[in-house]
Amino acid sequence: MSLFRPNIKAMTGYSPGEQLTGEVLKLNANENPYPPSPRVLAALRDAIDGNFHRYPDPVATCLREEAGKLYGVSPNMVLCGNGSDDLLTIIVRSFVGEGEKIVSPQPSYILYRTLADIQGAEFEAVEFPPDYSLPPGLADADGKVTFVANPNSPSGTMIPVHDLEELAESLNGILVVDEAYVDFADENAMRLARKFDNVVVLRTLSKSYSLAGMRVGLAVAHESLIEGMLKVKDSYNINVLSIIAGTAALSDQEYLQEIVGKIRKTRQYIADELRDMDIEVFPSQSNFVMARFGEDRVRKVYEALKAQRILIRYYDVPGVRDCLRITVGTQEQTERVVGELRTFLNSANAS
Amino acid sequence: MSLFRPNIKAMTGYSPGEQLTGEVLKLNANENPYPPSPRVLAALRDAIDGNFHRYPDPVATCLREEAGKLYGVSPNMVLCGNGSDDLLTIIVRSFVGEGEKIVSPQPSYILYRTLADIQGAEFEAVEFPPDYSLPPGLADADGKVTFVANPNSPSGTMIPVHDLEELAESLNGILVVDEAYVDFADENAMRLARKFDNVVVLRTLSKSYSLAGMRVGLAVAHESLIEGMLKVKDSYNINVLSIIAGTAALSDQEYLQEIVGKIRKTRQYIADELRDMDIEVFPSQSNFVMARFGEDRVRKVYEALKAQRILIRYYDVPGVRDCLRITVGTQEQTERVVGELRTFLNSANAS
Repeated sequence: MSLFRPNIKAMTGYSPGEQLTGEVLKLNANENPYPPSPRVLAALRDAIDGNFHRYPDPVATCLREEAGKLYGVSPNMVLCGNGSDDLLTIIVRSFVGEGEKIVSPQPSYILYRTLADIQGAEFEAVEFPPDYSLPPGLADADGKVTFVANPNSPSGTMIPVHDLEELAESLNGILVVDEAYVDFADENAMRLARKFDNVVVLRTLSKSYSLAGMRVGLAVAHESLIEGMLKVKDSYNINVLSIIAGTAALSDQEYLQEIVGKIRKTRQYIADELRDMDIEVFPSQSNFVMARFGEDRVRKVYEALKAQRILIRYYDVPGVRDCLRITVGTQEQTERVVGELRTFLNSANAS
Repeated sequence: MSLFRPNIKAMTGYSPGEQLTGEVLKLNANENPYPPSPRVLAALRDAIDGNFHRYPDPVATCLREEAGKLYGVSPNMVLCGNGSDDLLTIIVRSFVGEGEKIVSPQPSYILYRTLADIQGAEFEAVEFPPDYSLPPGLADADGKVTFVANPNSPSGTMIPVHDLEELAESLNGILVVDEAYVDFADENAMRLARKFDNVVVLRTLSKSYSLAGMRVGLAVAHESLIEGMLKVKDSYNINVLSIIAGTAALSDQEYLQEIVGKIRKTRQYIADELRDMDIEVFPSQSNFVMARFGEDRVRKVYEALKAQRILIRYYDVPGVRDCLRITVGTQEQTERVVGELRTFLNSANAS
């Protein structure tokens, strides 16, 4: 007899992602190809002889303050997490009881459904229209929490913030705008966190700030929401070095703009090249591109790149089974990917 | 109208612990007064130029392997957490549905009750007998999960492992033996994790390994339990530097024994001194002592130490309202505490 809750027992077990030994160009997890700001490394170096034997500041005050300054909000509107996954977990545990409903457009970040499964909640997937605009059914689904990744993954597309504003107005529950990729986009929804008391805007330092390894996420919302979510988080959910690294990273906006600029430029390059190969590319506002290779050759393209020790991402989910998601690397890495794709497609066309 | 779940809304809000500005001798959180092993600091220093832009190993393989070696179990019997609080959360979410029961002897670690509140679970507190031995009612309470902190906090006392073995046999649900303080004790329950498929033994590196700031916890249990709990944890719940620090810390058992030896010696010193002042001291197997000053003067002792900028811990809960918990500091720090206590008690007796 299993001692696990039935909803946990029913979940699929953990399977480690694809591992290739030796040198691999890893473009499957939307990691930033550049290192974090030198200011982060200097701050960490200074901290090594610090007070590891003491507990960290439970609310990461200096990180909250730095984030508040950057986003133009009170530090009391900011909650720091052990990555934004920690914050997504806190949100579900705060607002969604067993059997209650979580809603999200699909295809999107798979964790939203996983969190519903763990909580024993219902999950309603509302399909994106072909142009990946706001699905009209989202408001009607009436979830306790509605998750919208914007820019979305794996599509890389963006819903205009104005449309999210109307959604926030019409929803009875919480709207979470998961802006993991927003630093690579043309606009963001931070003003909705200031305007509404049912909107949570999530940011992560994993992508644009090159700190995936350090697990730093930020939630911005009305003080009443943050206050309640503080009850749910682990007492010391973000460690002393993550607080230091996160604060230093946010403080160096010049460095952020520099690497974001490089990635946007390379994103344009790979999109242009793919279109030149007659491949459909979704309009990307993120640090990756989703490209439609067609059902007949999608697995072959994936395998051809893997044979060249380049890992990209295939999604076996409705709507994108004929597509591959490619993280934007450095310009040099991306030129290599483009070269391999051209070689493969030329040989495929010739045969 | 609140959007929070009723159980979350009903919880008391976060209140930051007592803060004194300036130089304070902090003996209220059972932190280790010594720094972590030099091997930890060297490993962190080596890691500063590492791959922060990459996600950490989701299962912290090198830490699992080091822990497996140390505890004589397969790495597949180890789950790494962002502190043992993270693991306590994972356990509740894995095994306890809304309305189901969590059981724990009381007084004990307050997080057990908080986690029940967050989950919307029932919490049954079973009072310790005056000698802090295993409460007979624990097995009958029949929780989905039974938490036993051993050594217990705030009492510092220990239930013989043989008694926990009988408890594990008689329980239908999961028995969690929370061994946060066990490195300061004479025995431990690790063999129960190897023997039973309903026992989870928890360890933390916050206390004995001086790594409270880095958040590293370990759960050891039957592979089938670890496998299920892996579904519930956040994908990347422990960051790259915590994995490195934790692995280095576990590898230096010589250093651990050295500082544990010092703390045990100083624990004996403060217990002897308090008894010499006619203060009852609970037999401690941890890095703190619980001392009974009596209801008439307990607050006064607390305030007298605070006036000298020494922070200790008062618990306003049944059974220990006449007691204070004092973390064992360095020998020098502890001599200072003893001196202040003698001064206060002498002047109180004289007046």
